[in-house]
Amino acid sequence: MNKDAFFKLTYGLYILSSRDGGHFNGHISNTVFQVTADPPRLAVATHRDNLTTEFILRSKVFSVSVLEQDVDLEFLGPWGFKSGRDVNKFEKAKYKVGKSGAPIVLDKTIAWYECGLEQYFEVGTHIVFIGKVIDFDMVHADKKPLTYAYYRDVIKGISPEHSPTYPGKPEELKIAAGSVVSIPGGKNMQKYRCTICGFVYDPLEGDPPAGIPPGTAFEDIPDNWTCPVCGVTKADFVPLD
Amino acid sequence: MNKDAFFKLTYGLYILSSRDGGHFNGHISNTVFQVTADPPRLAVATHRDNLTTEFILRSKVFSVSVLEQDVDLEFLGPWGFKSGRDVNKFEKAKYKVGKSGAPIVLDKTIAWYECGLEQYFEVGTHIVFIGKVIDFDMVHADKKPLTYAYYRDVIKGISPEHSPTYPGKPEELKIAAGSVVSIPGGKNMQKYRCTICGFVYDPLEGDPPAGIPPGTAFEDIPDNWTCPVCGVTKADFVPLD
Repeated sequence: MNKDAFFKLTYGLYILSSRDGGHFNGHISNTVFQVTADPPRLAVATHRDNLTTEFILRSKVFSVSVLEQDVDLEFLGPWGFKSGRDVNKFEKAKYKVGKSGAPIVLDKTIAWYECGLEQYFEVGTHIVFIGKVIDFDMVHADKKPLTYAYYRDVIKGISPEHSPTYPGKPEELKIAAGSVVSIPGGKNMQKYRCTICGFVYDPLEGDPPAGIPPGTAFEDIPDNWTCPVCGVTKADFVPLD
Repeated sequence: MNKDAFFKLTYGLYILSSRDGGHFNGHISNTVFQVTADPPRLAVATHRDNLTTEFILRSKVFSVSVLEQDVDLEFLGPWGFKSGRDVNKFEKAKYKVGKSGAPIVLDKTIAWYECGLEQYFEVGTHIVFIGKVIDFDMVHADKKPLTYAYYRDVIKGISPEHSPTYPGKPEELKIAAGSVVSIPGGKNMQKYRCTICGFVYDPLEGDPPAGIPPGTAFEDIPDNWTCPVCGVTKADFVPLD
């Protein structure tokens, strides 16, 4: 039995959003399919512990935004790897409020569906929500949807721990081949990869928005620095081979 | 509201199979996702009227075979457009019988999962089955999975009526541009397209396995001829523009 067999399932990547009163939250989801055509209904699966799950159970509304292929880890990171318990993901987002009061993310979105919760089912660690589509639209008919395969193979992203497709602990993950280089002065230019979200720290680039100038070796970064994509500390980084 | 928005959802294409005693059946499905990672469980949606749905409800086992990209309509047709009430789809299929007794299709398969039914939910015209994966394997790690987008855009297939993504009646379908040609003798070489499965009858090729020689105009085909892919009669064909 080869566990990689599960990576042969094909998925898109979406932002699933909901509200609790006027408080909005959302996260990246790959587990969305249309169940019926007349009327259109969607099924989505989310982890019980996700804040968006709590919001859907309370407000009984949700939306699904189909992401376009042309996104990067910096855009996806906060939606996929940060919790709405720690940050307000809608603070800088482009979105609108739908008929049901559910937020609908429009950033990098090519189509969206707004749903009223009809039923839900508890399945182990996750909940499957069935939503009746009450509104929907196409935003960019000409753009390709982002697929999970593209996210893994081209963007080099990995699955967060609450994903149905979480592949296991970091030691099981295949780390992309990197390189050790040096710059004049002999500093260690080893790249490091975040085992949580896949972000690669490159000493040649540094992390200027966080005050880390280009040319800063990983070991010289202050210990209170956090991954710019998912927010974990240096302890969650490993050297690239 | 642009109904094409639903075509921005990303799917793979699978053969979903089950058994009733020693009688096997299966059909093409696009609605499959992994719900939980530990233990692995799959969710699949099927139309209530499908024979495979009846089989799953009776035997409480099913399997999902991930199809490879390199397939054609002639392979997909019987699995997607013919009913197991009319034909034995396993007669010529390459398959094995799994631990649960469920058939597992191996033709054009790159990975498969065998499931025991844990729960199911009635959702309008469809049923969502939740299966615990009891066995699985990779068959071809190096091959790409067939996606619904590839099926529509490259293979030029359409959705059968029982699919959750059935786009509506034939008059709403976009017919691919064809051409009218003539051969010596002035016979009408107009191509015709099956509105059910998308198969195109080309008079230059005929349908030799059914006794229709190359050069036979569509109107000269006997009325008892049926679509070689989905089995409907000439009445379901329309001229290509």
